[in-house]
Amino acid sequence: MSSVSSLPVESLNVSLGERSYPIHVGAGLLTSREHLLPYLAGRQVMIVTNEVIAPHYLHALKETLAGALDAPKEETLTGAELEIREVILPDGEATKTLSSVERIWDALLAAGFNRRCTLIALGGGVIGDMTGYAAASYQRGVAFIQIPTTLLAQVDSSVGGKTGVNHPRGKNMIGAFWQPRAVLVDTDTLTTLPPRELSAGLAEVIKYGLIWDLEFLAWLEANLGALRGIEEGAIRYAIRRSCEIKAEVVAEDETEQGVRALLNLGHTFGHAIEAHQGYGNWLHGEAVSAGMMMAARLSAQRGWLNEADVERVAAILCAADLPVTAPASMQAEDFLSRMRLDKKNVDSRLRLILLETLGRACIRDDTDPEQLERLLTDFPRT
Amino acid sequence: MSSVSSLPVESLNVSLGERSYPIHVGAGLLTSREHLLPYLAGRQVMIVTNEVIAPHYLHALKETLAGALDAPKEETLTGAELEIREVILPDGEATKTLSSVERIWDALLAAGFNRRCTLIALGGGVIGDMTGYAAASYQRGVAFIQIPTTLLAQVDSSVGGKTGVNHPRGKNMIGAFWQPRAVLVDTDTLTTLPPRELSAGLAEVIKYGLIWDLEFLAWLEANLGALRGIEEGAIRYAIRRSCEIKAEVVAEDETEQGVRALLNLGHTFGHAIEAHQGYGNWLHGEAVSAGMMMAARLSAQRGWLNEADVERVAAILCAADLPVTAPASMQAEDFLSRMRLDKKNVDSRLRLILLETLGRACIRDDTDPEQLERLLTDFPRT
Repeated sequence: MSSVSSLPVESLNVSLGERSYPIHVGAGLLTSREHLLPYLAGRQVMIVTNEVIAPHYLHALKETLAGALDAPKEETLTGAELEIREVILPDGEATKTLSSVERIWDALLAAGFNRRCTLIALGGGVIGDMTGYAAASYQRGVAFIQIPTTLLAQVDSSVGGKTGVNHPRGKNMIGAFWQPRAVLVDTDTLTTLPPRELSAGLAEVIKYGLIWDLEFLAWLEANLGALRGIEEGAIRYAIRRSCEIKAEVVAEDETEQGVRALLNLGHTFGHAIEAHQGYGNWLHGEAVSAGMMMAARLSAQRGWLNEADVERVAAILCAADLPVTAPASMQAEDFLSRMRLDKKNVDSRLRLILLETLGRACIRDDTDPEQLERLLTDFPRT
Repeated sequence: MSSVSSLPVESLNVSLGERSYPIHVGAGLLTSREHLLPYLAGRQVMIVTNEVIAPHYLHALKETLAGALDAPKEETLTGAELEIREVILPDGEATKTLSSVERIWDALLAAGFNRRCTLIALGGGVIGDMTGYAAASYQRGVAFIQIPTTLLAQVDSSVGGKTGVNHPRGKNMIGAFWQPRAVLVDTDTLTTLPPRELSAGLAEVIKYGLIWDLEFLAWLEANLGALRGIEEGAIRYAIRRSCEIKAEVVAEDETEQGVRALLNLGHTFGHAIEAHQGYGNWLHGEAVSAGMMMAARLSAQRGWLNEADVERVAAILCAADLPVTAPASMQAEDFLSRMRLDKKNVDSRLRLILLETLGRACIRDDTDPEQLERLLTDFPRT
């Protein structure tokens, strides 16, 4: 038996009827059979990971799965030998393309895997999004499990079932809503995460405070040092609270007809930055950070935030070592042309997430085009 | 106002909760605004069709949609000008690939279409399957409408939400369950359908009799001449009854966990024939016809059908001008290697649809491998 029961694991649930699933957060989950085996759909398992993550965690995960062979009788899948295969993709947002997903499908078909197979996404948001979409479309939909290894994936992309890939004309344009069977967040994996990516993840954590929970924002301001130092208790709390907020929003609006769009604070601007700069040159969280500053500034122009609020947003983003200015190479029109393609738009109206106050966001489609263009022109660049 | 209200249109419903939708069957539906406009999600419309269908029906459909401009006040979308675009793909099963779907996505993105757009599939099963999958994955899912123009698509592939494309290693391996907003069957479109394709469609019609409704099978035996002559009353009844059976099965089991698999009578053998012969060389309905004969023969070997039953199956397929033998170039192993990849299989057990009696099918995973191999070896070839 593993000794996992003694680990401090916090669990919460994403409530989506028959598509409900748990999120488990704790150190060492990657080696916990009891948190992994119940979510396999059958004995065929395909692990999808990348070249950076594989050397750190692939072996451990395979060992954990293979341990299923001598698992005690009361565990799932006793006696059934697992067929474990793997796909190791290159690292980075630039690989988040349909052709990477085709590599996963080719591997599944080459292995003869059927509808009862399970895909496991071991990696950051790119691996999770691609694996989820591969699962959504393989034989019209098979099971998958998220094991996010970056903070950004742990607090955001692994939860809620948004899967997909980028298209040269826009981010996440091809994809599906497809929920995982479980999300297993092993906080130990953050120890190998580069500081720049930790900061990028904190952008999404800060976002939850800004759009939903002023008290959490204050907690983050007080604990940013502990979070950047990956102190286990602080990190586990920040992840759990972020996932709680996301789960609450997603349960209310799985396919983003309404409130779920609030999670996109800063993302319309951010996606334009990522696309213009070339995917991966700005990390997603960095682009979202600059985008949240733009949304805060626009909210101030509408008269909802005051100057002190905007400075508070800038201060916490700076404290997390995140950008609060836009790329010097981008003109206003570079933003506008890409923002017109945003998935939130209805017919040809631009929809933006703004802040009514710190801790409460709103969806607006009545932004004055001239005001927006002025903001995009005047916003500081570096 | 159009004069469509006077058309004899038969309507039925596919009951899937909030994903429920109507099927309308009648002559002249392609020009009926009142059967088309209520199902548009917004003002952006992308028609997907092929080079064979476009010259016959694309203009009429666009005219019908464009008529929306001067529609009376009580109709949907008054005042809103529609943006109508089109993608015209090559004809045939060989084009049912991911790269064709990418052409649809590219067209949608080039047009700047957003989440409220509507795709219209105007064509046979290949166009419907690809358009449905394109809709399922564009911006994580947009609306689509099926306007099937072949008998096969009208009685089978346009109903039930199975969408997808082929992979070199197997048919329909990549796809999604994604329900249309409506299915509009204009029986007038059958007048331009080549007789060989009409017969291929009759294979699926006969299938419904074999698996579900002995009385319908008897009606088909008596009316096959009228159907092959495309007599409006007979054709409309055959389509409506086929869709009724399919809708009943799909409502019970949308994602093929159980009873829906019965609709695959003959398909496991048939898919192997199509894949081995090269997609499109045998029409889907032709391969299913030969496959249903194989299933009937295997059912007789199990002692469920008698020799007279098997001959009755052969007789109705022959009367519809459909093949009842397998391709001479296929060995038993050619079937077996492809059948092992079938989506119905659980882990590595082969699952087949067989006939307990005429009018009642069953799913079995206990076929004796030697008996199956003997059948595949002895089955007549031409």
